[in-house]
Amino acid sequence: MSRIDGRTPGQLRPVTIQRGWSKHAEGSVLVSFGDTKVFCTASVTEGVPRWRKGSGEGWVTAEYAMLPRATNTRGDRESVRGKIGGRTHEISRLIGRSLRAVIDYKALGENTVVLDCDVLQADGGTRTAAITGAYVALSDAIAWAQAKKLVKHGKQPLTGTVSAVSVGIVDGVPLLDLCYEEDVRAETDMNVVCTGDGRFVEVQGTAESQPFAREELDSLLDLAVQGCAELTAAQHEALARTLS
Amino acid sequence: MSRIDGRTPGQLRPVTIQRGWSKHAEGSVLVSFGDTKVFCTASVTEGVPRWRKGSGEGWVTAEYAMLPRATNTRGDRESVRGKIGGRTHEISRLIGRSLRAVIDYKALGENTVVLDCDVLQADGGTRTAAITGAYVALSDAIAWAQAKKLVKHGKQPLTGTVSAVSVGIVDGVPLLDLCYEEDVRAETDMNVVCTGDGRFVEVQGTAESQPFAREELDSLLDLAVQGCAELTAAQHEALARTLS
Amino acid sequence: MSRIDGRTPGQLRPVTIQRGWSKHAEGSVLVSFGDTKVFCTASVTEGVPRWRKGSGEGWVTAEYAMLPRATNTRGDRESVRGKIGGRTHEISRLIGRSLRAVIDYKALGENTVVLDCDVLQADGGTRTAAITGAYVALSDAIAWAQAKKLVKHGKQPLTGTVSAVSVGIVDGVPLLDLCYEEDVRAETDMNVVCTGDGRFVEVQGTAESQPFAREELDSLLDLAVQGCAELTAAQHEALARTLS
Amino acid sequence: MSRIDGRTPGQLRPVTIQRGWSKHAEGSVLVSFGDTKVFCTASVTEGVPRWRKGSGEGWVTAEYAMLPRATNTRGDRESVRGKIGGRTHEISRLIGRSLRAVIDYKALGENTVVLDCDVLQADGGTRTAAITGAYVALSDAIAWAQAKKLVKHGKQPLTGTVSAVSVGIVDGVPLLDLCYEEDVRAETDMNVVCTGDGRFVEVQGTAESQPFAREELDSLLDLAVQGCAELTAAQHEALARTLS
Amino acid sequence: MSRIDGRTPGQLRPVTIQRGWSKHAEGSVLVSFGDTKVFCTASVTEGVPRWRKGSGEGWVTAEYAMLPRATNTRGDRESVRGKIGGRTHEISRLIGRSLRAVIDYKALGENTVVLDCDVLQADGGTRTAAITGAYVALSDAIAWAQAKKLVKHGKQPLTGTVSAVSVGIVDGVPLLDLCYEEDVRAETDMNVVCTGDGRFVEVQGTAESQPFAREELDSLLDLAVQGCAELTAAQHEALARTLS
Amino acid sequence: MSRIDGRTPGQLRPVTIQRGWSKHAEGSVLVSFGDTKVFCTASVTEGVPRWRKGSGEGWVTAEYAMLPRATNTRGDRESVRGKIGGRTHEISRLIGRSLRAVIDYKALGENTVVLDCDVLQADGGTRTAAITGAYVALSDAIAWAQAKKLVKHGKQPLTGTVSAVSVGIVDGVPLLDLCYEEDVRAETDMNVVCTGDGRFVEVQGTAESQPFAREELDSLLDLAVQGCAELTAAQHEALARTLS
Repeated sequence: MSRIDGRTPGQLRPVTIQRGWSKHAEGSVLVSFGDTKVFCTASVTEGVPRWRKGSGEGWVTAEYAMLPRATNTRGDRESVRGKIGGRTHEISRLIGRSLRAVIDYKALGENTVVLDCDVLQADGGTRTAAITGAYVALSDAIAWAQAKKLVKHGKQPLTGTVSAVSVGIVDGVPLLDLCYEEDVRAETDMNVVCTGDGRFVEVQGTAESQPFAREELDSLLDLAVQGCAELTAAQHEALARTLS
Repeated sequence: MSRIDGRTPGQLRPVTIQRGWSKHAEGSVLVSFGDTKVFCTASVTEGVPRWRKGSGEGWVTAEYAMLPRATNTRGDRESVRGKIGGRTHEISRLIGRSLRAVIDYKALGENTVVLDCDVLQADGGTRTAAITGAYVALSDAIAWAQAKKLVKHGKQPLTGTVSAVSVGIVDGVPLLDLCYEEDVRAETDMNVVCTGDGRFVEVQGTAESQPFAREELDSLLDLAVQGCAELTAAQHEALARTLS
Repeated sequence: MSRIDGRTPGQLRPVTIQRGWSKHAEGSVLVSFGDTKVFCTASVTEGVPRWRKGSGEGWVTAEYAMLPRATNTRGDRESVRGKIGGRTHEISRLIGRSLRAVIDYKALGENTVVLDCDVLQADGGTRTAAITGAYVALSDAIAWAQAKKLVKHGKQPLTGTVSAVSVGIVDGVPLLDLCYEEDVRAETDMNVVCTGDGRFVEVQGTAESQPFAREELDSLLDLAVQGCAELTAAQHEALARTLS
Repeated sequence: MSRIDGRTPGQLRPVTIQRGWSKHAEGSVLVSFGDTKVFCTASVTEGVPRWRKGSGEGWVTAEYAMLPRATNTRGDRESVRGKIGGRTHEISRLIGRSLRAVIDYKALGENTVVLDCDVLQADGGTRTAAITGAYVALSDAIAWAQAKKLVKHGKQPLTGTVSAVSVGIVDGVPLLDLCYEEDVRAETDMNVVCTGDGRFVEVQGTAESQPFAREELDSLLDLAVQGCAELTAAQHEALARTLS
Repeated sequence: MSRIDGRTPGQLRPVTIQRGWSKHAEGSVLVSFGDTKVFCTASVTEGVPRWRKGSGEGWVTAEYAMLPRATNTRGDRESVRGKIGGRTHEISRLIGRSLRAVIDYKALGENTVVLDCDVLQADGGTRTAAITGAYVALSDAIAWAQAKKLVKHGKQPLTGTVSAVSVGIVDGVPLLDLCYEEDVRAETDMNVVCTGDGRFVEVQGTAESQPFAREELDSLLDLAVQGCAELTAAQHEALARTLS
Repeated sequence: MSRIDGRTPGQLRPVTIQRGWSKHAEGSVLVSFGDTKVFCTASVTEGVPRWRKGSGEGWVTAEYAMLPRATNTRGDRESVRGKIGGRTHEISRLIGRSLRAVIDYKALGENTVVLDCDVLQADGGTRTAAITGAYVALSDAIAWAQAKKLVKHGKQPLTGTVSAVSVGIVDGVPLLDLCYEEDVRAETDMNVVCTGDGRFVEVQGTAESQPFAREELDSLLDLAVQGCAELTAAQHEALARTLS
């Protein structure tokens, strides 16, 4: 059985990771998972939020947003509505936690990195693309901070790599990296964040139309671990290229 | 090895579920998981939100909040700050999704149930206590709606039961139903929502201090499934009592 | 002529004042005036707001709120609406002023007490129950601060006691401590806050359906003074019990 | 003993009531109590708020605000802060209730009058000047609505007149119509709203530095009743003039 | 061809500039351009916003607002809506920039002047009346600051004078100082801010119903320069009077 | 004398206009003026805002925003701050007015087009790039609406073309299309919006460090008209390409 876009159940959409997409940001990436495109910037500033001052430790945080017409019908701007919606809050927090999982705060020193993930075009999996792209932007930003001596010589604030992918059960079949059309039809939907060595940072599974059994959960985790391994490889490849 | 409060790793805190705690609400419960106390009310209104009108289907939603001094140090009121924080948003959404997982919208008809879960005292596991208590309040509210003929004769809007529990790894040991002190020390923290027949509605695992391996995830899921089964029994017992 | 609930015109509803209702707060009380139940906590913190720093004087303030289903029909959460309504503002300010009337700021020293009064169930008189309960919570919090040496040895920040009651004219008859059903039918409605020695801290009388004459005002004040005296006795009795 | 500005204890400040101060509003008044100047407009619109539609009854509401430099030091604009303060809320509600006390909603029919009271210059007593001036603006607006046939022939929506004054105890002496300097020194401060026939619409007394006794309350009420009688006369005089 | 109100195309409406309209503000003016009346206050405070501290330079800023019934139909208060509209923002910024154009920050020293321009009655040209009046209030406030030695002896923070006027094309004819009725019919509408020596501070031209040609722009600029010269004279005259 | 980036005073930066940059929007363009990159989408919906219903006329509006790291230092998100800043408001309104200048509302019929202009990277001239790009997106959206028969057969809602450019005086020399570094140094800064036939839609000139004379204004207008003509040509060229 083949999928809407002809993929096999365990196949990722084409993934591209373009670095250096902004002339201002210390790290910047345009990541695409098929038609989902997220622009990720990593901004480094000296100093940390007030509650962390004097700790000798750094901080990493993230903000996620969708452009109003990233989706098929235009959504209101959250700035115009005057408040951030629950979904935006939830995803921003997820991205922040995911990236912090591979940060050694002591090694980072009292510096802050803010990751902005703005969805330019959405077709499912925007949060997982954001995490995967943000890691690469973060990596470039850390390298910049090391070059600028904001991070002390010999210190490596990154303790590993992190990537993320969605999985779900559609018509009873576990699928990797759902596009929007699959996502709306999924009985179960899961976002999984893994480190490069295959351990879990976040596992968020939700029954959409009916509860799921342990075996289903297990097969989804298998798919996700394999997908994250491929994304990890794509991240390494992108970081191996010379940044013009 | 025994826990801070003398429990074994797989032991729940004492659970109490008091129904009929409000004279106004159609369903109301004071639920406690140890020192965590959450007041859950279920409010039934005829009609549904605008986007659902004419569908013949009902709606269930939830709002979660903490009283300012539910915790050890007083927190600002979100009403005073003028906006809801990300954590509140996230938990409200989780509770809503969890309860909707056992609702047959068609059978409910064009009625809305709002579940309000207000934490009176917090000691870890407030969201899981909220879900467990809210189910009982929802059940009473549905019975009220059936008695009032808001729900058509012979229709059963509830398709099952739902409960939730937290699990986590502390000092390398998987533990059930973390209290606050355990929660802050946990390396990994997971909230699991199950139906009464042991399937999953939500699985949300987060690495706090380090990524977790598949075997750790598996043992946490085992504990959670067992804990939810005990909570399901407590819910049945509470619902079996006569409401004065 | 007897009242809806069988009381005489000058009779209070059953009053209960339970101390120690929270394990976290420095003072906490669940107060009930009949079916009106208000949860009052007193939170002590060292230091004072910016505008009072260096004055050597303390500060006491209050916040009042209703849980969404405290009333017969569910009200929107003010946190969700993003702003506090006029009624909430007005009552929070009234409670704060009332409690500050019995505080010696110098004796309190640069400490702040915040009184949170959250209505769990409303049946008329929520603001007067809140003031009456908050006094007891404040008293416990001050005792805690004295024990912790936050308040200097020999200093007594409390200069008296304070309680409050509503009175009103229903069908031409002055009544004490209106329940909700009486309140909505009242021609005139008054909230009176008294010190334990029978003097006035606040008198707020409002003509609901028609202006009131001086004699009516006088008879309402008589009832209120008597009611406050009984509430003062109930406060003393509650404070005389040993806090487990 | 004479007062700061040479008045006797029972003497009002010079009162002026200028009608027709706006070319747009259906009723408009610039009222001054000494150096306190409030610009009151009454705006009539056909129709009523949604919750009152089809009742056949009208509605009257009020909004009070201070210009930022109405006081001795500039205050932030509430529009810039993005929320209305508690004091503003409280006074707006007081003005609205006071004016509604002399309105026959049935006679008004489904029309709405909004009273805007903007303080151009403050020197104590802004809310009482606002009520006193707003009554005159309301009266002109009602006459306009009668002339335009918005109000049915022969109907009189006004059931009486209303005015307000502040009283307080300064250095143990009850004083009428406090100016700012007196107000900040007052031990007790009361705002009283009366109908033209000398009955009470609102009585709001607050102990500022110490509780007050029944006799003090009585002498303040005496002063207030007399002051309101004089203000009623000033209102009649203003309304007797021809509006150019 | 004569205008709605009988003026010639190049004729201003009657202009009045009354100084000393507030007893509190350091500078205050009631300015009228025909039926447009704006109350302008200038508030001086020692110190500057945080981002300017230690620079030795002062700051001047402005806030513009309309009273709700300044216009023919009542508008909602921006404080009640909880946010400032785009038009208000835009005009506040324009007034601030215009006044800063004639300020020598160094000479002002670390003092701040806030200009509040509140429209009491609107009939077109409120922003230009506001700028013209605010200059006079600013001038009085600067003189006050010099007298109080907040500004160093011998320093003159004002580098010139500034005034503003609207111009527009109605039925193909360029007109000076449009009243509301002309403004709504204008094909092109321009606000011009000039210094006393006839140079430009701001030129903001907008095609309302159709684009405008270079010659039209030129003739509008000619009218505006002439109008500003007359307003400059009115400002000088007002400032020459003795402030009682 | 050559400019920072080697251009002559009257030379535009390289301009690129890429259509079809979004798979969802009815019209979409990535426009760049040198390093300034703005993503413009045009969203068409049937129907118009409430105040325009039944008029038979359409509506066009615009929203402008900057991504947080579009600039050299990261700015706070307006959605997180909970309100839109004055600059954003002002530019959104300018873009909307500019595009509406070439719309025939009757021909558009009761349809709405929303133009979203999100700055991905800023280097001066973001509002003029936004207007220039938004016109092309609007043009594609109108063509889409014609093809979908939302616009009646034979109707042409576009009455012309519109483009915009900034001009300014730097070190006494009038320059076309300022980059950021020039913009901050400019004595005078002007944004000019022209139709394709060389008439003006908006002229907004601001003295930054000193007032400007009529001759300076004239030479800036000359430059701007020439720059807009070149941008008009670039728009035509972009629209002449086949959209894949």
